[in-house]
Amino acid sequence: MKATLMYGAGDVRVQDVPDPVLREPADAVVRVLRAAICGSDLWPYASMPPAKQGRAMGHEFLGVIEDPGAESPGLAAGDLVVASFLWQDNTCDFCREGLQTSCRHGGRYGFGGVGGGQAEAITVPQAQGTLVKLPVAADSALLPSLLTLADVLPTGHHCAVKAGTGPHTTVTVIGDGAVGLCAVLAARRLGAERIVLMGSHAERTDLGREFGATDIVAERGTEGVERVRELTGGDGTHVVLDCVGTLVVLETAYGVVRDGGVISRAGVPQYAEGPIGMDMLMRNLTLTGGATPARAYIEELMPAILDGTIEPGRVFDRTVSLDEVPGGYQSMASRQTLKALVRP
Amino acid sequence: MKATLMYGAGDVRVQDVPDPVLREPADAVVRVLRAAICGSDLWPYASMPPAKQGRAMGHEFLGVIEDPGAESPGLAAGDLVVASFLWQDNTCDFCREGLQTSCRHGGRYGFGGVGGGQAEAITVPQAQGTLVKLPVAADSALLPSLLTLADVLPTGHHCAVKAGTGPHTTVTVIGDGAVGLCAVLAARRLGAERIVLMGSHAERTDLGREFGATDIVAERGTEGVERVRELTGGDGTHVVLDCVGTLVVLETAYGVVRDGGVISRAGVPQYAEGPIGMDMLMRNLTLTGGATPARAYIEELMPAILDGTIEPGRVFDRTVSLDEVPGGYQSMASRQTLKALVRP
Repeated sequence: MKATLMYGAGDVRVQDVPDPVLREPADAVVRVLRAAICGSDLWPYASMPPAKQGRAMGHEFLGVIEDPGAESPGLAAGDLVVASFLWQDNTCDFCREGLQTSCRHGGRYGFGGVGGGQAEAITVPQAQGTLVKLPVAADSALLPSLLTLADVLPTGHHCAVKAGTGPHTTVTVIGDGAVGLCAVLAARRLGAERIVLMGSHAERTDLGREFGATDIVAERGTEGVERVRELTGGDGTHVVLDCVGTLVVLETAYGVVRDGGVISRAGVPQYAEGPIGMDMLMRNLTLTGGATPARAYIEELMPAILDGTIEPGRVFDRTVSLDEVPGGYQSMASRQTLKALVRP
Repeated sequence: MKATLMYGAGDVRVQDVPDPVLREPADAVVRVLRAAICGSDLWPYASMPPAKQGRAMGHEFLGVIEDPGAESPGLAAGDLVVASFLWQDNTCDFCREGLQTSCRHGGRYGFGGVGGGQAEAITVPQAQGTLVKLPVAADSALLPSLLTLADVLPTGHHCAVKAGTGPHTTVTVIGDGAVGLCAVLAARRLGAERIVLMGSHAERTDLGREFGATDIVAERGTEGVERVRELTGGDGTHVVLDCVGTLVVLETAYGVVRDGGVISRAGVPQYAEGPIGMDMLMRNLTLTGGATPARAYIEELMPAILDGTIEPGRVFDRTVSLDEVPGGYQSMASRQTLKALVRP
């Protein structure tokens, strides 16, 4: 079958690889119907050192179960399922607490011999704990939105949840990428009435407005901070959702957060150290967020997609075939594409 | 009158200064009955550049109102009161939210012409919002414990509250200073059943045990981390209360916190930047804490002192007169004294 492998920065290839097979009784083989390219895939695309062995790519996918394995109670061949972007048993103590990202038997696609979702098919470990059935047909128009349940929507949602977003919080979302837009959607869904979206791509911030942003700030840095402060009576917002991950954006976050407020990070931090000194302490600021335990949120978020309340699939503005995946990476990296949907 | 002034590192002097007077209608003049030397006073004691004009010291004090000012409703001459370690109006939006540290009309003793509490008397700005009446006599044996309401007890309490400490959380407190011991007391009071205290001074950790610590870890650094992990099934604790403030302790905190957990800081950070990279994100860790809005907690914490449930005043292991204050600083800095009570 065909699968996507990354061999280094800028070097993504679609190649023939052995068909996936069951290796453990808890595995399931899934034929991929839709996959996505993630903003986090762009970091290795920008910086991965050249490697002789390619890394299997793709951690957002949905598809049809081909072979459910012996230990996949409740799953059957032919089931349409979405996978969470990490796999987990969903039974250990961490999973039961809703922290599937720290599952005692979990892991990441593309590592340790596990394949990726930007492929024709994939062996999913811990299938019973990882795959969630989708109550729609394989040709449903909802597939793009349901695909966002794998990662990007729960990432925005988790970021907003960890920040304590609710009806009484004002929110700034920094970043008009797919995660930022999903964070807007999540904040709105959690009841926030004032949502400032910082982003400079008009088409994306327009979508952000439709997703629930009440104010758009296109300025960056000091100017952007001043603009958000102006909009909020000088004080900033209770919650800031950092959906980018650079140090410059973290500094903006400190600039726009209200005293006593929370900065929550969804963006993968492109830094090891950052400012957490006296100012943070005196202002009683909290820094939180993290990798989303997507599995914990899929059932909670799915109904709003099924009934049309939210349409997170609108973040996909380009569809590519498997052979076109390298172009999808290039197009996202150059910001021509917001988020690419892969249709193997 | 006599007051304590700091002129630089290691240079604390008790000098004659003009008697405090009312300058604003919201001021009150308080004759100090008890004051304290704070762990945070030791940072300038270690590092303040030499200055021609001394800085008035002391932000923990209780005393008797001598002159209540024209705009101090509910306060009368002769009232025994404790002051919070910052002054505030206690009516602005931040104060109403319980974030008196960000009061729109508040400030710090010893700055902007406001005196300090390590003195015979002090003019307290925003007296109505800052002073809380104590329902005991001026010779009560509870005065040391009631004095801790000014800062050190609410500091430990706030640290534990911001971390979400409750009956179902396991807690590590790092630091066996007065703040650490008050954090133990606060965590216990909030219902935590497992409280690991990291500290190496046996007399202090013994008191920590009486305050509610269930385990003592005397080892530091990597060894200390391993020991806490051993005690917690390998996982660490949900909550870590950093009651020191150095980068080494922050690293220990990352080592002993459970995935998904919270590091809450009470200690004044002696660093501007620290580790907040990928590991923090992947483990879903939260960094919080901050300067305590002491005023928000005084009424809540006082009853447990009045009825003898808690005895935070036991952190005072030395009493000094005003003239002996410089020796009190020296003794605390050299760790001979845990916390010094000043009796002007």
